[in-house]
Amino acid sequence: MVLPSWRKSAARDAIHHFIESVTDPTSSGYVEPGDRIAVFDNDGTLWAEQPIYPQTLYSIDRLRKRGDLDPALLQEQPFAGARDGDFDAISRTGIPGHLRLFAEATAGMGYGELAADVREWFATATNPDSGALLSSLVYQPMCELLDLLRQHEFTCWMITGSSGEFLRICGPDLYGIPPERIVGSEISLTVEHGDRVPKVVRGRELSLINDGPEKIASIIRHIGQRPIAAFGNSDGDLPMLEWVTAGDRSRLGVLIHHTDVDREWSYDRHSDIGRLHRGLALQPDHPVLRLDMARDWDRIFTS
Amino acid sequence: MVLPSWRKSAARDAIHHFIESVTDPTSSGYVEPGDRIAVFDNDGTLWAEQPIYPQTLYSIDRLRKRGDLDPALLQEQPFAGARDGDFDAISRTGIPGHLRLFAEATAGMGYGELAADVREWFATATNPDSGALLSSLVYQPMCELLDLLRQHEFTCWMITGSSGEFLRICGPDLYGIPPERIVGSEISLTVEHGDRVPKVVRGRELSLINDGPEKIASIIRHIGQRPIAAFGNSDGDLPMLEWVTAGDRSRLGVLIHHTDVDREWSYDRHSDIGRLHRGLALQPDHPVLRLDMARDWDRIFTS
Repeated sequence: MVLPSWRKSAARDAIHHFIESVTDPTSSGYVEPGDRIAVFDNDGTLWAEQPIYPQTLYSIDRLRKRGDLDPALLQEQPFAGARDGDFDAISRTGIPGHLRLFAEATAGMGYGELAADVREWFATATNPDSGALLSSLVYQPMCELLDLLRQHEFTCWMITGSSGEFLRICGPDLYGIPPERIVGSEISLTVEHGDRVPKVVRGRELSLINDGPEKIASIIRHIGQRPIAAFGNSDGDLPMLEWVTAGDRSRLGVLIHHTDVDREWSYDRHSDIGRLHRGLALQPDHPVLRLDMARDWDRIFTS
Repeated sequence: MVLPSWRKSAARDAIHHFIESVTDPTSSGYVEPGDRIAVFDNDGTLWAEQPIYPQTLYSIDRLRKRGDLDPALLQEQPFAGARDGDFDAISRTGIPGHLRLFAEATAGMGYGELAADVREWFATATNPDSGALLSSLVYQPMCELLDLLRQHEFTCWMITGSSGEFLRICGPDLYGIPPERIVGSEISLTVEHGDRVPKVVRGRELSLINDGPEKIASIIRHIGQRPIAAFGNSDGDLPMLEWVTAGDRSRLGVLIHHTDVDREWSYDRHSDIGRLHRGLALQPDHPVLRLDMARDWDRIFTS
């Protein structure tokens, strides 16, 4: 069992021990393959989220390209920030603000249009800080972990605060997680009855903000059972991690702490993106494990 | 390719032709296995829904057993009907009424409690008209169809107007559809922060009524792509069938007409359960096919 990009650490040991335990039929912690479900946050857990979420880079780009934003909206945040490229102003509006930008940027698109547009955009989109392709800022250690879990008959899901539709376009190729196992925030969809054929049109309402406790409700609605492993990086993931690790059999919960200012970014309690505050104060006996990116990972990105 | 319980009919021919076409790499209608997605309504499409939905039989049973219903609620429908066993009165309140009964019957239950309770109930629950076990009133021809599609690398989903949580308990064993591919109506879930561990508690609000155009939005949110085959039996399924068959490649849409008063039930435009009115008036060139249960099926139930 190998995780080549993981240094010897408490987190790696816990992962190996957990997998051994749930897959060994003679172990008291054995779990049937059908119940081996693992859930992953995405932004900051599977790919980089600094200086701002990829979904928001897309939204800014498309809003500028369209150029038809209601002038009244431009008086307020996050829209003024999108016009000015002021990431901090946008991020102060929190996940709902990021989703409002996305909703506005994609409102009125028909079925299929969004997928084609995001796919085209994502093929060349780059990180504003490093200039690297967004598709290369995926965490190599997490890809190895996904592979290792799947080798041991785990089913892996993404539970993201970004739009589920957005991630279902970018995610499957990056992580090998199929679209139907990607669950995110939701923007309203309206179905109009066109000429005998219903027409799906994207609205502007945030119908589900998939963050905090809402991630637990989403898991129940989409998966229908409690996962045995969960991975996240922010306070918004913590309820999900606590719920998963509170189950009555083998459990694993890992919280990634972004500590690597040289190879990635270093941020926690003062960041409006991926804030980690409560998660830094977990008691030592807390079942959720904290991973230190600078210390525990030998390599950060896939390329 | 065989469907032993299907008589030679336009529907059977269409199914065979469709499967041949999408699986033959030399055919212009060829579809990659990953895109072979089929969606099925459940009540009246996979199992019998008369004289009332199984979900509602469960709700009535549990409401009576609990006996603690707010007396004010008992002044109104569907609650008075549940107390009196007046199925017609309940069904006149439509799918939202059926869901309100279910929400009330299960409100306050914790995570896991509902599953255990429904499982116990379903093991012995019977149909009020025939006395047969509900679990035996599953359509044999549809089980054969599910198998045939899976043999040809289709992924099959259930898109039901009943509670998704309810069907995720009863459905997997009956149909071989895994829980995460069962999508239904949703009752609100509240997550309370208990003693370090979040606690999921069932609420009373109908947060999603998965009927009519809403089924299309659910497909987009859960599957993330347009299916190529859809099966239903009521006007509430028609938008989904029309949307699926409006796609730009091989498509199949089948509407089951309940015509068999001897072996099952005969109902359509005047029924408050599974009403089929608009679906009876489809033009002959309409891409959705109608199946006549009495004429087209040699055998109705699995046992």
